[in-house]
Amino acid sequence: MKFIAGLAAVTLLLVPVYAQVFTFTHDDMLKYTAQNPFERFADGRPKVPDTLLERVKGLSAEEVWAVLPEGGFRNQYEGNFRILHPNRKLVGRAVTAQFMPSRPDVSNIMQADAKAKGMRDNGNQRVIDLLQPGDVLVVDLFGKIEGGTVVGDNLATYIYAITGTGLVVDGAIRDLEGIQPIDMSVYCRGVHPTPIGDVMLTGINVPIRIGNATVMPGDVVFGDSEGVYFIPPQMVKQVVDRADETHIHDEWTQMKIKTRKYKSTDIYPTPRDPELKKEYEEYKKQRLGQKQ
Amino acid sequence: MKFIAGLAAVTLLLVPVYAQVFTFTHDDMLKYTAQNPFERFADGRPKVPDTLLERVKGLSAEEVWAVLPEGGFRNQYEGNFRILHPNRKLVGRAVTAQFMPSRPDVSNIMQADAKAKGMRDNGNQRVIDLLQPGDVLVVDLFGKIEGGTVVGDNLATYIYAITGTGLVVDGAIRDLEGIQPIDMSVYCRGVHPTPIGDVMLTGINVPIRIGNATVMPGDVVFGDSEGVYFIPPQMVKQVVDRADETHIHDEWTQMKIKTRKYKSTDIYPTPRDPELKKEYEEYKKQRLGQKQ
Amino acid sequence: MKFIAGLAAVTLLLVPVYAQVFTFTHDDMLKYTAQNPFERFADGRPKVPDTLLERVKGLSAEEVWAVLPEGGFRNQYEGNFRILHPNRKLVGRAVTAQFMPSRPDVSNIMQADAKAKGMRDNGNQRVIDLLQPGDVLVVDLFGKIEGGTVVGDNLATYIYAITGTGLVVDGAIRDLEGIQPIDMSVYCRGVHPTPIGDVMLTGINVPIRIGNATVMPGDVVFGDSEGVYFIPPQMVKQVVDRADETHIHDEWTQMKIKTRKYKSTDIYPTPRDPELKKEYEEYKKQRLGQKQ
Amino acid sequence: MKFIAGLAAVTLLLVPVYAQVFTFTHDDMLKYTAQNPFERFADGRPKVPDTLLERVKGLSAEEVWAVLPEGGFRNQYEGNFRILHPNRKLVGRAVTAQFMPSRPDVSNIMQADAKAKGMRDNGNQRVIDLLQPGDVLVVDLFGKIEGGTVVGDNLATYIYAITGTGLVVDGAIRDLEGIQPIDMSVYCRGVHPTPIGDVMLTGINVPIRIGNATVMPGDVVFGDSEGVYFIPPQMVKQVVDRADETHIHDEWTQMKIKTRKYKSTDIYPTPRDPELKKEYEEYKKQRLGQKQ
Amino acid sequence: MKFIAGLAAVTLLLVPVYAQVFTFTHDDMLKYTAQNPFERFADGRPKVPDTLLERVKGLSAEEVWAVLPEGGFRNQYEGNFRILHPNRKLVGRAVTAQFMPSRPDVSNIMQADAKAKGMRDNGNQRVIDLLQPGDVLVVDLFGKIEGGTVVGDNLATYIYAITGTGLVVDGAIRDLEGIQPIDMSVYCRGVHPTPIGDVMLTGINVPIRIGNATVMPGDVVFGDSEGVYFIPPQMVKQVVDRADETHIHDEWTQMKIKTRKYKSTDIYPTPRDPELKKEYEEYKKQRLGQKQ
Amino acid sequence: MKFIAGLAAVTLLLVPVYAQVFTFTHDDMLKYTAQNPFERFADGRPKVPDTLLERVKGLSAEEVWAVLPEGGFRNQYEGNFRILHPNRKLVGRAVTAQFMPSRPDVSNIMQADAKAKGMRDNGNQRVIDLLQPGDVLVVDLFGKIEGGTVVGDNLATYIYAITGTGLVVDGAIRDLEGIQPIDMSVYCRGVHPTPIGDVMLTGINVPIRIGNATVMPGDVVFGDSEGVYFIPPQMVKQVVDRADETHIHDEWTQMKIKTRKYKSTDIYPTPRDPELKKEYEEYKKQRLGQKQ
Repeated sequence: MKFIAGLAAVTLLLVPVYAQVFTFTHDDMLKYTAQNPFERFADGRPKVPDTLLERVKGLSAEEVWAVLPEGGFRNQYEGNFRILHPNRKLVGRAVTAQFMPSRPDVSNIMQADAKAKGMRDNGNQRVIDLLQPGDVLVVDLFGKIEGGTVVGDNLATYIYAITGTGLVVDGAIRDLEGIQPIDMSVYCRGVHPTPIGDVMLTGINVPIRIGNATVMPGDVVFGDSEGVYFIPPQMVKQVVDRADETHIHDEWTQMKIKTRKYKSTDIYPTPRDPELKKEYEEYKKQRLGQKQ
Repeated sequence: MKFIAGLAAVTLLLVPVYAQVFTFTHDDMLKYTAQNPFERFADGRPKVPDTLLERVKGLSAEEVWAVLPEGGFRNQYEGNFRILHPNRKLVGRAVTAQFMPSRPDVSNIMQADAKAKGMRDNGNQRVIDLLQPGDVLVVDLFGKIEGGTVVGDNLATYIYAITGTGLVVDGAIRDLEGIQPIDMSVYCRGVHPTPIGDVMLTGINVPIRIGNATVMPGDVVFGDSEGVYFIPPQMVKQVVDRADETHIHDEWTQMKIKTRKYKSTDIYPTPRDPELKKEYEEYKKQRLGQKQ
Repeated sequence: MKFIAGLAAVTLLLVPVYAQVFTFTHDDMLKYTAQNPFERFADGRPKVPDTLLERVKGLSAEEVWAVLPEGGFRNQYEGNFRILHPNRKLVGRAVTAQFMPSRPDVSNIMQADAKAKGMRDNGNQRVIDLLQPGDVLVVDLFGKIEGGTVVGDNLATYIYAITGTGLVVDGAIRDLEGIQPIDMSVYCRGVHPTPIGDVMLTGINVPIRIGNATVMPGDVVFGDSEGVYFIPPQMVKQVVDRADETHIHDEWTQMKIKTRKYKSTDIYPTPRDPELKKEYEEYKKQRLGQKQ
Repeated sequence: MKFIAGLAAVTLLLVPVYAQVFTFTHDDMLKYTAQNPFERFADGRPKVPDTLLERVKGLSAEEVWAVLPEGGFRNQYEGNFRILHPNRKLVGRAVTAQFMPSRPDVSNIMQADAKAKGMRDNGNQRVIDLLQPGDVLVVDLFGKIEGGTVVGDNLATYIYAITGTGLVVDGAIRDLEGIQPIDMSVYCRGVHPTPIGDVMLTGINVPIRIGNATVMPGDVVFGDSEGVYFIPPQMVKQVVDRADETHIHDEWTQMKIKTRKYKSTDIYPTPRDPELKKEYEEYKKQRLGQKQ
Repeated sequence: MKFIAGLAAVTLLLVPVYAQVFTFTHDDMLKYTAQNPFERFADGRPKVPDTLLERVKGLSAEEVWAVLPEGGFRNQYEGNFRILHPNRKLVGRAVTAQFMPSRPDVSNIMQADAKAKGMRDNGNQRVIDLLQPGDVLVVDLFGKIEGGTVVGDNLATYIYAITGTGLVVDGAIRDLEGIQPIDMSVYCRGVHPTPIGDVMLTGINVPIRIGNATVMPGDVVFGDSEGVYFIPPQMVKQVVDRADETHIHDEWTQMKIKTRKYKSTDIYPTPRDPELKKEYEEYKKQRLGQKQ
Repeated sequence: MKFIAGLAAVTLLLVPVYAQVFTFTHDDMLKYTAQNPFERFADGRPKVPDTLLERVKGLSAEEVWAVLPEGGFRNQYEGNFRILHPNRKLVGRAVTAQFMPSRPDVSNIMQADAKAKGMRDNGNQRVIDLLQPGDVLVVDLFGKIEGGTVVGDNLATYIYAITGTGLVVDGAIRDLEGIQPIDMSVYCRGVHPTPIGDVMLTGINVPIRIGNATVMPGDVVFGDSEGVYFIPPQMVKQVVDRADETHIHDEWTQMKIKTRKYKSTDIYPTPRDPELKKEYEEYKKQRLGQKQ
């Protein structure tokens, strides 16, 4: 009994307090991420294991795409970002935040809530202070550039120090010259010197929209030099397993291509000649064995 | 006792059931629209009186703009719409709906909820069936044109039959040829023959964003040939009162202009000559008297 | 024998001479429009009968869309036009023309060909002179506005005098003030005072692309106030038959809606109550009988 | 002597006082419009005679275009306007104004100048008060929409009362609902409810740029439903004379086309058959006689 | 005799078989590239010699532009590409391909043709398998990004292995991370993870349009960090010869500029002082001698 | 006396001659830059001292922004440039030039003026030859890309040889491959191979507009990897002084952040804990001492 009570206390301690219009309760989080096969954070957010995140780092964009739409997930990709460090893969667990254009009647109520809970004024920092190692902050700032700058170099330094990952924002950053040298992945729509303003933080760790993608808290964020995927936790294992096979396929195909002895249709997408097909199957079998 | 119980039953009957990720409870609605000076619907949505709505119909866009930013409401206007019947004023109480790109893990749960509550599949109809006379449906479909068509001519006919007003959608409509002849105001981003698809209804009567404006359920929607304003209930009276004075000012100014006896700076924005100023003040006093 | 020889002569007379890089032979035309169930013009272009065109005039955009994608035709619609006389339906048989940016090495050869065949210089007029009653000229001018003006008011007058229909151009027109009073349907991307220039006519009655639609000679062009459909001849009958039923469905649905006695989900998309369903089925049966 | 002195006094009275960074002196005006063949206003601005303006009203866009580029004037047209009353021809003499984004160090000096000269604060009204019958105000507001609204309905009423023409602005207007009913031509880039702000008036009656056109004070403004031409005074006569002939050509051509007896190449752009050519020449001769 | 017969057989073997709506016969190819002064491939495509291609690699964009428009070729340049390896010059002989939005009636016929000829399904690979060393694939995919990805990393590897050059596509690529490390030039409009889809291959080695440029098979493709030129074979020699002189001019001019002893107008575009002019002429003479 | 006369002669020699529609006299320059606290060039243009420019090189964009709007300067920044060498700071004194679309009546007069003063034809070179060490050429070419190329590699070499800084153009450059290797900062809208054409130089060292910024001759140009600021001379000292403090603040903040011992709200924007606040104040005091 005592043990349970103690646990509850700890949980209460760990579950962050919010002051937003939209907040998922612990129950909401469980309900809408019910398919998550992994453990969870104190607030219910799915926690895809680090070992799996490590494997995600080896993925290519096509390998994600090859699996998600088949599972009915057609709206999990967004491109058209300005990307800092495009050659650095961004992989982590989504912490989501939603902003809207400010209106004082709503904004004042949330500010009063925040104050009552001992929080500071700035909405962006309220979210940032929730971040944990391996998290990726994903922010809907509705494409706002001027006054839509979620962080400057000080807060970017903070995010990277805590998470070791990066940031996705449908909005802007400021202080590019201070952020560029930090080895963190940033996906934004633009850069502007203005501080963030005339917006209000309306949601934390709720479903948000980034362009044409719907993001859930706990999704695995995968960013490469093309754009960003938001992979539902329950799909991650399937994606990385399929990718192993694709890697081997591409390895073999490109090896053959470089001999310059074949037409592309002889070997791609699949070898046409039965002999070649057999050769490929054996190669795959052997390499899959090595991978496991 | 019995009375109270009966009242509760009625309320339960009147409060709509929802199946969305984001829903305002009755308490949320009261909290975030606390400044509403008027009565409310069963679900707590502010109900600006019909008599006031009638006066709003006489407003011009400038008269709204002249008051809202002063009150700190700088994000209550959105333009860039395709407008059917631009010469017909759209005035009513906002019923809001938010859609997001569909993802099956979230969508299925909401569909199951809906089914359990005896609702039909189509998200757009779930909202439409909540409409009451004088309501204006305001829909965030994130600018989607193809597959972002919230209504065709059948549902448009329904909306107009029930509300007598119109529709604002950050998305599209279909069946333009069937909708055009209906004398209803429609503000949309485009027209496309596809039915609505690949989206999920994520919120009903919650704060939504239409372009750069934040809309609350119960806001007074005011659409003219330029665009749409969303006026918080607590600001409506102030707007219409100020407008009366502006009307008189413009009436007098334009009367003077048409004499061709003055430079524009002699009479606008305010008369420069003391004699003229006095004439204007008397005119205003007399006309304000007529208005009351 | 003599008869056949005579026929051949006539055919040669009727088959237009061309001077373009891309031209369909009579055989090409038969091969690529093999599914056409109707008679053909001398050059093999499908000739959907006038009686069927007449029924197409009664269609709405949704009725076309309801059938084409099911048949695998997903790329037969294009919007984003500037439309003169949007309330006038444009219906007719496509005559296609393709222009490219001019380069003298290719252009000179086509000009020499044209001259050798006794044709005049202007590519646009070479196509226009092929038009017959009921034809609709469909022109790919790759979105060119300045210098992409396929006709001015003189040639527009000509087109309307001959065809009685209108014009679709992924490019521009000039002399808007002279064309506007003509009661012809024009779908263009813009208006510019420059004459057509720096382009060469590269194809007549070959497959062309208008935005995201592929158009074949002989397609039925259907333009309404939303955009333009290009309906393959073999699909036309199916489209108009299905439309009859849709008309009746909408007629009944809207009749019910206007009683204000139902929620939209009670009757749309299909009546929920068995009694209502029966009523609708009887109504449909009776009305279909009237249509035939 | 006295007479001359008096004349000078009158001139001084008529020449407007300015308070802008860029102002043409009387000498500048004469120098840069040296080819003007007509009389001038007091400040040197060319004054194309009313009788000629009257003939300009009968022009079409193509007739202007047919002459200007030949004379080396390739940059005198601008389209892409939102046009109120597109069917009303806008014809008059250009009064130009240039605005720039405001900066206080420059703006304050101009405001001080204006104050010292007894002018009011508002830059837009300083220009508007210079307008005379037959003038057209042409304003460079660098495409600004929000806060780039050169007039609302009061000042629009003023402009129309004085000039009887209209307005061209590379910027916006506000109070569309009040302006629409006025029968004046307005060419703008957009409509916004904000008043003009954060700009400073930098030039009056100097060369300005409207999109890709360069406008000089005194140019004849010609607006139709396609866009606006700015015709240098020295070109006006040549344009209207040539137009007479074009009118006759089109009259004859369309008359022939409507007989449906010719291919377009038989008669357009010029009749091919010698007999027809002769017929046309006689028609032209006779009609030109009627015109004079 | 036997030899000739054998040659014919070989030729037949070498001339590729096609299955497209638009195909140039050997005769068409000769006719429309009649000015080609060089040898040809088996299918008639001009084959600008390797030695000349080598000299083209030393060109700058301005040197191409300096010659082509003079020869009437104003539409041979296209910019606005996303360029991989912009500092690597792309030089080779154009192999052209045209895609259109798919429609099953046309697509099925081409697929049947392809199958009958023993080809595989994928249109893009049919073209890719025609490539030879020194070729550059130029593809019209009408700007399609999603589903407009002509190659991923496997086929890109193939193209580079065979041609040693690169790729120009008015469309997209996928698998950027796999392609980036390959040292090949890629000019595309975007990057997307989707495979190519909903398009049909309509032309191989026919005239195509890339933005505002018309490309003929056998054109010399010249891509630098600004964009791509398509140089007709008959113009190549003239371009490289003129470039030699320009190189020398720039060499001398910049040498002088760096002394900081001259105003720019003293020496550029041509030296003004007779002494300097003489010095330049002597320098040019000497350096041209070195070049030959 | 003689000395003064001599000085006057020298001054006359140094004051450049112009041939533009818009030119600031020495008096205009003094009047509109009256707040300049520093010395001036012969033509009155403010000359911010080199030592101050040196300190500007250490600024970040945010530090400029932090000061200018407070002083009422809200329109001194412009982004959306294509930037060569974005990591190289561009700092110098603005020399401004304005171009407009050419019209022969105005252009010929300016050309005649130029000829009479012994200048060469090319407007761009007339401005370029005015440049002095430390100047930055800022050119309004109204966003023109094709034919809006203010310099190629020869003139770019010249500009860099003389100024040691760079170039800002609301237009284009050509010969990117020749300019890229020069270590100069270039901010342009695009790159095109065409030479500059169909424009006329209308102003030198007058106020100009670059996007949404108003630039005065003598402004300090500050370009970083985000965009360009134009800092009025009288604001420069204030900006650099404030920046010293910001540098120290960020230094301390990021030092603390990297300990990972604080929430962002504990230390940013200001330390919350009194102890920390004190620590920061002492740090600042000490570091400011080091800076002076």
